[in-house]
Amino acid sequence: MNKRLTFKLIGNVLLIEAVLMIIPLAVSLIMGGGDAVALLIAMAITAAVGGGLSLLKPKNDNLRAREGFAVVSLGWMLVSFFGALPFTFHGSIPSLIDAFFETVSGFTTTGATILTDVEALPKGLLFWRSFTHWVGGMGVLVLSLALIPKMGARSIHLMRAESPGPSVDKLVPRVGKNAKILYQLYVWLSVLMLICLLCTGMNLYDALIHVFGAAGTGGFSNYNASVGAFNSATVDVIIGVFMALFGVNFSMYYYMLRRNWKACAGNSELRVYIIVLLGASVAIALNILPQYGGRFFTALRYSFFQVSSIMTTTGYATADFNLWPQFSRTLLVCLMFAGACAGSTGGGIKIIRVQLLVKSMVREIRRTVHPKSVNTVKLDGRAISEGTLSGVLGFFFAYVFILLLATLIISVDGFSFETNFTAVVATLSNIGPGLDMVGPTGNFAAFSGASKIVLSLCMLIGRLEIFPILMLAAPGAWRSY
Amino acid sequence: MNKRLTFKLIGNVLLIEAVLMIIPLAVSLIMGGGDAVALLIAMAITAAVGGGLSLLKPKNDNLRAREGFAVVSLGWMLVSFFGALPFTFHGSIPSLIDAFFETVSGFTTTGATILTDVEALPKGLLFWRSFTHWVGGMGVLVLSLALIPKMGARSIHLMRAESPGPSVDKLVPRVGKNAKILYQLYVWLSVLMLICLLCTGMNLYDALIHVFGAAGTGGFSNYNASVGAFNSATVDVIIGVFMALFGVNFSMYYYMLRRNWKACAGNSELRVYIIVLLGASVAIALNILPQYGGRFFTALRYSFFQVSSIMTTTGYATADFNLWPQFSRTLLVCLMFAGACAGSTGGGIKIIRVQLLVKSMVREIRRTVHPKSVNTVKLDGRAISEGTLSGVLGFFFAYVFILLLATLIISVDGFSFETNFTAVVATLSNIGPGLDMVGPTGNFAAFSGASKIVLSLCMLIGRLEIFPILMLAAPGAWRSY
Repeated sequence: MNKRLTFKLIGNVLLIEAVLMIIPLAVSLIMGGGDAVALLIAMAITAAVGGGLSLLKPKNDNLRAREGFAVVSLGWMLVSFFGALPFTFHGSIPSLIDAFFETVSGFTTTGATILTDVEALPKGLLFWRSFTHWVGGMGVLVLSLALIPKMGARSIHLMRAESPGPSVDKLVPRVGKNAKILYQLYVWLSVLMLICLLCTGMNLYDALIHVFGAAGTGGFSNYNASVGAFNSATVDVIIGVFMALFGVNFSMYYYMLRRNWKACAGNSELRVYIIVLLGASVAIALNILPQYGGRFFTALRYSFFQVSSIMTTTGYATADFNLWPQFSRTLLVCLMFAGACAGSTGGGIKIIRVQLLVKSMVREIRRTVHPKSVNTVKLDGRAISEGTLSGVLGFFFAYVFILLLATLIISVDGFSFETNFTAVVATLSNIGPGLDMVGPTGNFAAFSGASKIVLSLCMLIGRLEIFPILMLAAPGAWRSY
Repeated sequence: MNKRLTFKLIGNVLLIEAVLMIIPLAVSLIMGGGDAVALLIAMAITAAVGGGLSLLKPKNDNLRAREGFAVVSLGWMLVSFFGALPFTFHGSIPSLIDAFFETVSGFTTTGATILTDVEALPKGLLFWRSFTHWVGGMGVLVLSLALIPKMGARSIHLMRAESPGPSVDKLVPRVGKNAKILYQLYVWLSVLMLICLLCTGMNLYDALIHVFGAAGTGGFSNYNASVGAFNSATVDVIIGVFMALFGVNFSMYYYMLRRNWKACAGNSELRVYIIVLLGASVAIALNILPQYGGRFFTALRYSFFQVSSIMTTTGYATADFNLWPQFSRTLLVCLMFAGACAGSTGGGIKIIRVQLLVKSMVREIRRTVHPKSVNTVKLDGRAISEGTLSGVLGFFFAYVFILLLATLIISVDGFSFETNFTAVVATLSNIGPGLDMVGPTGNFAAFSGASKIVLSLCMLIGRLEIFPILMLAAPGAWRSY
């Protein structure tokens, strides 16, 4: 591996992180709270380390797939480590493991928390915590790509490593421009959501926090009761709808702006996403009807918000779905597996992969009936290569394998099977809350340090779609060339 | 589909079932209990229906894959239906759904029960209930293949449909002879176990019941406390070891008898099976040590028995592992997924499939590091074709898909997530007991009729390795040619 180039690029990313810390620092100075010093020291350390690494002189700038993946996976870990420093320096999260967990949860847009009282944090740190969602949403690296376009064509390796979904849609030939378009869409959609929230009378601070959480499909709130704290149907609908919008493949918005309606209408992933979103909302609304006094639209308000929150892997809550009937709870767990569309900010296995998995299952059934027939799996009229299919099937096995392995490891802590299983699903799919102890009113504080590290790894593995992180453990990866 | 040929063959199978019912009838007449009449009526009805169907005159005897699979999947359903009649006629299991569940559980060698008091059943019915394990173990159809060799080469379709594992080892060229060899090994191993149990002073009836349960990797006992009722370390060891032996690919025994040691030593599935069996036993023994007063060998006695019982998908219990620490419980759930070796009487995903799945995951990681390298998955020195690999990966997805779907459906009953999830794993992998309500001291009685039917289907889907049952729902399958 070209280690110098790898660490030089990571250094650049850390420099960007130090610059980004200016924003919560400004918030802290304006709103008070005594966390400015902690932020300042963390910023200085991050800038110093990042600056030092960025001075490295690589022998050549040969960026291959393995360097791309290494920058992404190590970069995310280090960004999370340095991002955790303000919490520890301030003392509001004294344990570094806890602070690391919280920051990984932020950057990976998971939204799982170890805080038992979110509201006790000072405003600046709370802002930083949520801001990591927004930065992580489209990928810290895509951001640096957009800012450093000189890397040229080779940077596709970086983008591929951290873009969700089985393949990267190339909207325009140049990678840097591609990233810029996506970022612009992301910013404009965020601004639109901010305006909508401000119109309801929400203050700017709260509105920003919840825009960050929804846009990045993260789920951190500055209230213990999450979005439920606003107790407003209008806010529920706005956040619910915007979460759903951020779960759509961003390429669709590009096509819409270009008035290429055919490209949107022909996208079966979008169709399946909308059908599942609405179908599951109605099914759960009917199931929870008795708990809401038989008022269907009240039940639908809560069920739609929750389904949108879970499917897009955001994790906001307006109701304690841990207290809902078992069918609704289990349906939410199933949705946790599926996740949102590829090319969105959401996590999980992704709808398009589920489509391909179901199609190849149907093909196996067809093969049982007609063993000699030739069957090609098609999606949106295009034939899917066997290589892509076996990649998706392999991804699925790796997902379940890690799910069971992590559930087994954290079971040492002795919590219930439901807690452990859904805690891993919720971190691996970057959702946030699970069921039982880690339900929407619970948190991850009670887990041991070892379990918190395992769950932090699950969040990173989930966000980077498994293989980049596992690759770090492969024997050939670190060899020098 | 050649429907007449399909139903004619099913008719033959029902005739064999009617003949097999003579044995419990004899037991009932010798030991009393008032269940002889119920057995006699059920036998007469089964013989009449089977005889009627076997008189069908097919236009041709063209047996293709789809007829093979249809005979197997419909055959297993009908055999279970008619096998359930004695319980309902006698009145000891009044509900036909319950009786069907119990008989499916018997023939599929699952061992899940809806009975709250097993010991209340008369001896003849208890014998029939356990005897179905022994018959189902090697496949009712393999039995008929062994008895009706005139079908010749085409009958490989039948054998392939109900043989566990990704491929059928052809020990000898002729299918009929192949089946006979396997059956002889099965019978001799059963006789050996019977002799061992009789030597401990166990009476013939109890010994036969537990030979049937262990040989078929079923798990029905005639005691409420399962094997724990004997409260004997010797019995625990004998049954524990024999369960493990019945979880080995039967071809290995054939090779051993032929002194082909190389074929056994080179079989990595056998190696992995033994390592996991012993490793998990020791891990659990250490975990449960405090509950057994720190006596390691006592703990190992219980942990080995339980691991052997779960891995081979038998389901006997000598301890209530539902009360063990969470790590041991979760490890047992993980073992439920894996199951035993292909070509054994055990269920589950099978060790060889797990090996192939892990190998293809490792390949994906290697591809991340070296995207252009050519990687072939090898097992025991042989290259595995991409077709086999995608079949195994597809099988795995189908397994998890059905697991989640069935868990969602039965969640309507409102029991805990742990109950529902492990109930489906335990039926889909043909194990029997799960955790919580369906733990070793619990049973499936409390589920609704609809859930019992879903779980019965899971047992059939698991036993026939998914696709033959799903095929029945495929649109093209029933078309006449």
